[in-house]
Amino acid sequence: MVDVSAKPVTRRVAEASCLVRLAPATLDRLDRLPKGDAFAVARIAGVQAAKRTSEWIPLAHPLPLDQVEIGFAGREGGLEIRARVVATARTGAEMEALTACAAAALALYDMVKAVERGAVVTELRLESKSGGARGDWTRDE
Amino acid sequence: MVDVSAKPVTRRVAEASCLVRLAPATLDRLDRLPKGDAFAVARIAGVQAAKRTSEWIPLAHPLPLDQVEIGFAGREGGLEIRARVVATARTGAEMEALTACAAAALALYDMVKAVERGAVVTELRLESKSGGARGDWTRDE
Amino acid sequence: MVDVSAKPVTRRVAEASCLVRLAPATLDRLDRLPKGDAFAVARIAGVQAAKRTSEWIPLAHPLPLDQVEIGFAGREGGLEIRARVVATARTGAEMEALTACAAAALALYDMVKAVERGAVVTELRLESKSGGARGDWTRDE
Amino acid sequence: MVDVSAKPVTRRVAEASCLVRLAPATLDRLDRLPKGDAFAVARIAGVQAAKRTSEWIPLAHPLPLDQVEIGFAGREGGLEIRARVVATARTGAEMEALTACAAAALALYDMVKAVERGAVVTELRLESKSGGARGDWTRDE
Amino acid sequence: MVDVSAKPVTRRVAEASCLVRLAPATLDRLDRLPKGDAFAVARIAGVQAAKRTSEWIPLAHPLPLDQVEIGFAGREGGLEIRARVVATARTGAEMEALTACAAAALALYDMVKAVERGAVVTELRLESKSGGARGDWTRDE
Amino acid sequence: MVDVSAKPVTRRVAEASCLVRLAPATLDRLDRLPKGDAFAVARIAGVQAAKRTSEWIPLAHPLPLDQVEIGFAGREGGLEIRARVVATARTGAEMEALTACAAAALALYDMVKAVERGAVVTELRLESKSGGARGDWTRDE
Repeated sequence: MVDVSAKPVTRRVAEASCLVRLAPATLDRLDRLPKGDAFAVARIAGVQAAKRTSEWIPLAHPLPLDQVEIGFAGREGGLEIRARVVATARTGAEMEALTACAAAALALYDMVKAVERGAVVTELRLESKSGGARGDWTRDE
Repeated sequence: MVDVSAKPVTRRVAEASCLVRLAPATLDRLDRLPKGDAFAVARIAGVQAAKRTSEWIPLAHPLPLDQVEIGFAGREGGLEIRARVVATARTGAEMEALTACAAAALALYDMVKAVERGAVVTELRLESKSGGARGDWTRDE
Repeated sequence: MVDVSAKPVTRRVAEASCLVRLAPATLDRLDRLPKGDAFAVARIAGVQAAKRTSEWIPLAHPLPLDQVEIGFAGREGGLEIRARVVATARTGAEMEALTACAAAALALYDMVKAVERGAVVTELRLESKSGGARGDWTRDE
Repeated sequence: MVDVSAKPVTRRVAEASCLVRLAPATLDRLDRLPKGDAFAVARIAGVQAAKRTSEWIPLAHPLPLDQVEIGFAGREGGLEIRARVVATARTGAEMEALTACAAAALALYDMVKAVERGAVVTELRLESKSGGARGDWTRDE
Repeated sequence: MVDVSAKPVTRRVAEASCLVRLAPATLDRLDRLPKGDAFAVARIAGVQAAKRTSEWIPLAHPLPLDQVEIGFAGREGGLEIRARVVATARTGAEMEALTACAAAALALYDMVKAVERGAVVTELRLESKSGGARGDWTRDE
Repeated sequence: MVDVSAKPVTRRVAEASCLVRLAPATLDRLDRLPKGDAFAVARIAGVQAAKRTSEWIPLAHPLPLDQVEIGFAGREGGLEIRARVVATARTGAEMEALTACAAAALALYDMVKAVERGAVVTELRLESKSGGARGDWTRDE
């Protein structure tokens, strides 16, 4: 784990997203599945995983997070999950945003797997980051 | 978390996979990145996350795992990660296999992000499961 | 942590409950608080804490849980939370049921504290247990 | 998890308490129970749970704690447990103090349950908080 | 993590020990240090670490433990710590016994470091194991 | 857990070391053992344990770490493991450095135990610390 003690403490924001490919029939009832409301479970899974990112990712620095926000949007072909993480720290929150997305997507899959076992999580990626010494970055599409 | 106490304890196997899309130049030096050997880090991240799946996935049952195996294969367009999980339990190990893949992929991303920030994790999905009362299942392509 | 290896593995059930004292106005809007749906958050907090009871309670044995169920019921003076835990194990799930109640109550308090900081958690107690060698037990009122 | 990045970092203190209702005979031998010294176990359980509050409470921010202190006082009808938590942070330590009390009380119950299974944890509540932008607060009785 | 699903579930016992080298003056007051009773803290640290061995040791299987016992004995030159772990499992509890010793020793060091910073933990080792297919083993001195 | 809120936040460095006594034949093949590369596994175990030191050590303050570095050096009689931890905090990182060493050593033992069960971890100790109010300290040999 590299030394970040000489870097300044700044406000960092990172956003990540992924797409859970789902059949339209599944997408329509995510809030009333046999096991409960998939959005509520996925949102909490994402927030909680973000807070513990340094346990998932061996060489990630532990970060005190100021905010974790999980959003959902129906898309052609499935559900988009977006995570936005804010931290005041010496290193960026990219891994936290990605981890939040991954955990939310897997928790959502856990909720739907009885009705659609073959669902796929795809396009898990960083969307943007800002606030670090190396400058801001936004995915270029 | 649904009641599984009436289900028999059987040997369960689940396999999942994902693809980390990477530039060929990155793919070529995964074992000698500035931060170290990405394979070793990703493998351990996957094994460790599998063991703690019930912490990441709110409604997943805790499972005592018999085996977790992480494999890597260079593919056109990136690196395939495969996880195989074996458990002797009342419920299947699908979430463990998927969680192992996700954690391995994110740990690998953490290793390469200094050289390829835009890398994407894609096609995270269950490949097969066997050993449960509902019968075996293999992804049909 | 006492030796339980000579005890038989049996199906254990434990139930616990507590009361979160709340003003009627707060009780009426638990599902639409500024921070979200308090029931969903409390339920997940309870399930997750139950699974990790042996981390909260220093001398508790780790138990593989078969089921955790969290229920809510409006009562005169507040909200009753009930937890039911099933395990197939050498020792009982009383601590798991109590821990689930406590975590659900605290998570609920976290959701309401902006509107009712003085809320109190009370009457946290075991209601019943069954399945162990020492016989069943039900609270006698 | 709401954004606290614009709030100033200040010294926060929170105190919480609860009462474990116990028979006088149990109260008299809490320091020499079959499983050991209940005070030592409860104190450590409280300190450790406080440090990990953001794992138990889904939407709580992770806080770096400066101090956790657990106190015990015999009362008419049982044992009072008090927790005091100090943090230098952007958000208050109320949940940490409450979580410390709950964990200490449950750990104590775990120690006494062989001799008094029906023991009840009651009046778990915030006593005071200070140091935040919204001003200090003390329970008014 | 190697596949143990074909191994029989048997009762496993493992014992480990270590020596914390301490000045006689420190050894004499371990139960009344400025921070409290070092034995109580070390014992709990050992028990809790044993339960979570598979989190500290990347390739260790998670084991449901039946018993963890931590013992202390004054020795010429310091304090001996002994851990005994019992599990009914497909694989042995050696790592659990060693991890318990290490955590107990470090927790004890944390208690004494204000009075004897240079204390050393030494001779951390497996003493015996029994119950597995490969036969019993006792350290030969 | 003592109150450190009045102490200044400074850059702290702590170094610890231990020796894993190993037969020369084992030492020669640590990077190609049946279970894999022992150095990679031990390094990650050390880094990860350092980050979670406050979970192992009951009364340790949680510290946000800036760096964790694990080094290995072949010695007469075995392998020396060294951990260096940097933190910007109100309290020192001694326990983090010692915990990193202990976890790395145990993870290494887990890798070699099939070939050398009797391996011993010895001389686990703080080497130096700097950056705190009480002044720097270096082991005097």
